[in-house]
Amino acid sequence: MSPVPAGKENHASIKKPVFTLETMNKNVVNVQYAVRGELALRAEAIKEELQAGKKLAFDKVIHCNICNPQQLDQQPITFFRQVAALTEYPELMRDPKKIEGLFPKDAIERAQTLLKGFKTLGAYSHSKGVPYIRQRIAEFIERRDGFPSDPEDIFLTSGASSGVLLVMQLLIENSNVGVMLPVPQYPLYTAACSLFDAKTVSYALDEENDWALDVNEMRTRLHEARAQGTDVRALVVINPSNPTGHCMKYENMKQVVEMCHEEGLLLMVDEVYQENVYDKQARPFHSFKKVVRSMGEEYSDFELISFHSVSKGVAAECGRRGGYFELAGIDPRVNAQLYKLASVSLCPNISGQFMLDLVLNPPQEGDPSYELFHKETTDIFSSLKRRSEKLCAALNKLEGVSCNKATGSMDLFPQIRLPEKAIKKADEQGKKGDEFYAMEMLNAIGVCVVPGAGFKQKAGTHHFRTTVLPP
Amino acid sequence: MSPVPAGKENHASIKKPVFTLETMNKNVVNVQYAVRGELALRAEAIKEELQAGKKLAFDKVIHCNICNPQQLDQQPITFFRQVAALTEYPELMRDPKKIEGLFPKDAIERAQTLLKGFKTLGAYSHSKGVPYIRQRIAEFIERRDGFPSDPEDIFLTSGASSGVLLVMQLLIENSNVGVMLPVPQYPLYTAACSLFDAKTVSYALDEENDWALDVNEMRTRLHEARAQGTDVRALVVINPSNPTGHCMKYENMKQVVEMCHEEGLLLMVDEVYQENVYDKQARPFHSFKKVVRSMGEEYSDFELISFHSVSKGVAAECGRRGGYFELAGIDPRVNAQLYKLASVSLCPNISGQFMLDLVLNPPQEGDPSYELFHKETTDIFSSLKRRSEKLCAALNKLEGVSCNKATGSMDLFPQIRLPEKAIKKADEQGKKGDEFYAMEMLNAIGVCVVPGAGFKQKAGTHHFRTTVLPP
Repeated sequence: MSPVPAGKENHASIKKPVFTLETMNKNVVNVQYAVRGELALRAEAIKEELQAGKKLAFDKVIHCNICNPQQLDQQPITFFRQVAALTEYPELMRDPKKIEGLFPKDAIERAQTLLKGFKTLGAYSHSKGVPYIRQRIAEFIERRDGFPSDPEDIFLTSGASSGVLLVMQLLIENSNVGVMLPVPQYPLYTAACSLFDAKTVSYALDEENDWALDVNEMRTRLHEARAQGTDVRALVVINPSNPTGHCMKYENMKQVVEMCHEEGLLLMVDEVYQENVYDKQARPFHSFKKVVRSMGEEYSDFELISFHSVSKGVAAECGRRGGYFELAGIDPRVNAQLYKLASVSLCPNISGQFMLDLVLNPPQEGDPSYELFHKETTDIFSSLKRRSEKLCAALNKLEGVSCNKATGSMDLFPQIRLPEKAIKKADEQGKKGDEFYAMEMLNAIGVCVVPGAGFKQKAGTHHFRTTVLPP
Repeated sequence: MSPVPAGKENHASIKKPVFTLETMNKNVVNVQYAVRGELALRAEAIKEELQAGKKLAFDKVIHCNICNPQQLDQQPITFFRQVAALTEYPELMRDPKKIEGLFPKDAIERAQTLLKGFKTLGAYSHSKGVPYIRQRIAEFIERRDGFPSDPEDIFLTSGASSGVLLVMQLLIENSNVGVMLPVPQYPLYTAACSLFDAKTVSYALDEENDWALDVNEMRTRLHEARAQGTDVRALVVINPSNPTGHCMKYENMKQVVEMCHEEGLLLMVDEVYQENVYDKQARPFHSFKKVVRSMGEEYSDFELISFHSVSKGVAAECGRRGGYFELAGIDPRVNAQLYKLASVSLCPNISGQFMLDLVLNPPQEGDPSYELFHKETTDIFSSLKRRSEKLCAALNKLEGVSCNKATGSMDLFPQIRLPEKAIKKADEQGKKGDEFYAMEMLNAIGVCVVPGAGFKQKAGTHHFRTTVLPP
């Protein structure tokens, strides 16, 4: 930089900037969240090379790194989008003749019902969400679980992530509060702990046992942390799991609930993949709410918060930012504080709220839209299942790679055993083993995955996460 | 509560709940945000009484308390909703013959262009927002100001409020950081300071001078706070103002910029009401970006963040949750940290992003939709202006009430001079004078407003905020 010219040394010109990396909130600086890692940048560069006509061993980059189905050409569900279009522009419904053949009868009826529940997509709603939609979500939960659900315990959010951040912001009283997080995990949770300055207490998922939760391991980690003075208050469980693809068994869930009950832990469950299970007979999804309520009176004050979203399932309406969480056994004064905090941002977007109604209450047999809806969803489910199985089998055939079969989600998390030589080479490049492997894979065959380090993994092991989305 | 029955005193049954008002984040508890005040509850009760057939001096409650135009029957702009419907369900555009007469040509073209810019409402976008939309916003800013704008400095957000919270979260390094806030003000800013544990430094808007900003007053408050050890780093300005309705004059804006420059303050400007000015000739809106850029080279590193939204203007698409902020003169490393933090919640909803494109780039003369668009917007503008003037005149005729004429926004903030007797009566009921007045008004004539205390006011004065929305 050139020196300050003579006569320019006034107060204003030497004033330092106020808002810099050095002066900003350090908790934000400490958040680990890979947004444009080296790998994503390299993938972009390769795409440009291919476009410029460069000859490589492959002709396109395959993105297995983001769980964004519609970006990868999965088509939206027709019924959902028909209703969405009608609620956007209700004028279409003024003369039914004009839209004959364009919209089925049940789509029109649903749009009208939604607009009776809340008259326009253009107005702020109640900060917890439209009361009618919360009522409909409560009905869905009751059907799913067989236990009551109160609309006042339901908060609509801008995707599940915003809900998790809202709850974590309230939960974390001070920097000695600890939250138990799975390893591997979806990185949102570690990010939230950094952001609100909590301690993370990691528990390893049991790779040898199909990535199940091991309550002995969990108790050990919990007692260690408490012995060191950490005030561990909550446990996060992701079921079905991102990134492992594991859908929990009922007995395993019961063990987790018992542990939380005995140890005095709030249970936060990320159940966004609840629709994404591959075998609804052999390994069905159970909600933690149902498990807790089935365990009787002694568990009636069990503290549980569960999160759900329109971004997964077959809808995969990621860009919609629609989600909700349900409180069970939570202090009503905490509910009131969550409501107050939600009010500061006014409300979640109404079209995301409407989409929740559609996703949770889809067309039923006999409805005009049912046949098409059934075909579309069956195609998506079976294609996801087929691709998951095929990809898992292919991975297991590779030397040094082993992968547990997924029972749910849209992901796989294979382990890679790297030869000494590769680890040494990675070291030389200042990379972790899995980062090195993922970069080699991108360069060699054009497949872009996320190194396991991004999701955390047991020390000394190497993995990568791949979605099963690209055809 | 009944005593614990004998034999039930095991560890689990006496365990206290983990997540309670006592154990939660105290910053959240300290946030002041009236969501369901006594007044709103009384309004609901009166509505029920009226519905039950009770005879009162009025036959309906008039809601002047929330700035939510479409909830109060303002119709959405047809062109915006036509494009929105087409982007929701692009299948409609497959056979143009089928939608002849339903959608004008330019709505179809705009929908196609938006879908070329980002292929579906159902996918996550870049965390800063769709690059195409950021480019279009930059073009709008350049047209508005006559100075360059870089899409990389633009972040799309879920309404302006989320943007303000995101920036404040980064800005507030520790609890000694101070932020200057106007009095009266929209309560989001005080809430954000409580939430992220900053000190607020209030400066009074000059009611005697049409609610203009008084830089002498501002400097006095700033120096007082700094003398007391507060590390004042930023100044918030709302222009046009919520709740006062004041649109700032160019000279006044320059004074504010000079003060920030001399004193080393980041300037955060809430410009969501930029379209809502009543006389575009006599008192036009100027953006602070334009003012700063017009002040020459010396101000080239001036630190400015400005916020905008689709919730106000004539669109009033509040439920959409679409907004953006633009950084100017901000450390690129802060930009990178904002990007990282935005990524944790993935992205703002795509339909809100598309709506920003529509609102900022509406139909132009010669376009098929222009005539209708022009009529709709002119009607809304002139009706808002007429209602603001009429209401202001009516208020000034009331005994003990005086109100500055609004030059912008959708609000008025009249002062009320309460007689001794009324203040005594309010005291007896444990209410503030303005709360008492607002409740009396609701009970007597069915008009629901917000007491001035909710927006803060100069000590010893009483006001209320009323929107000019209900016809």
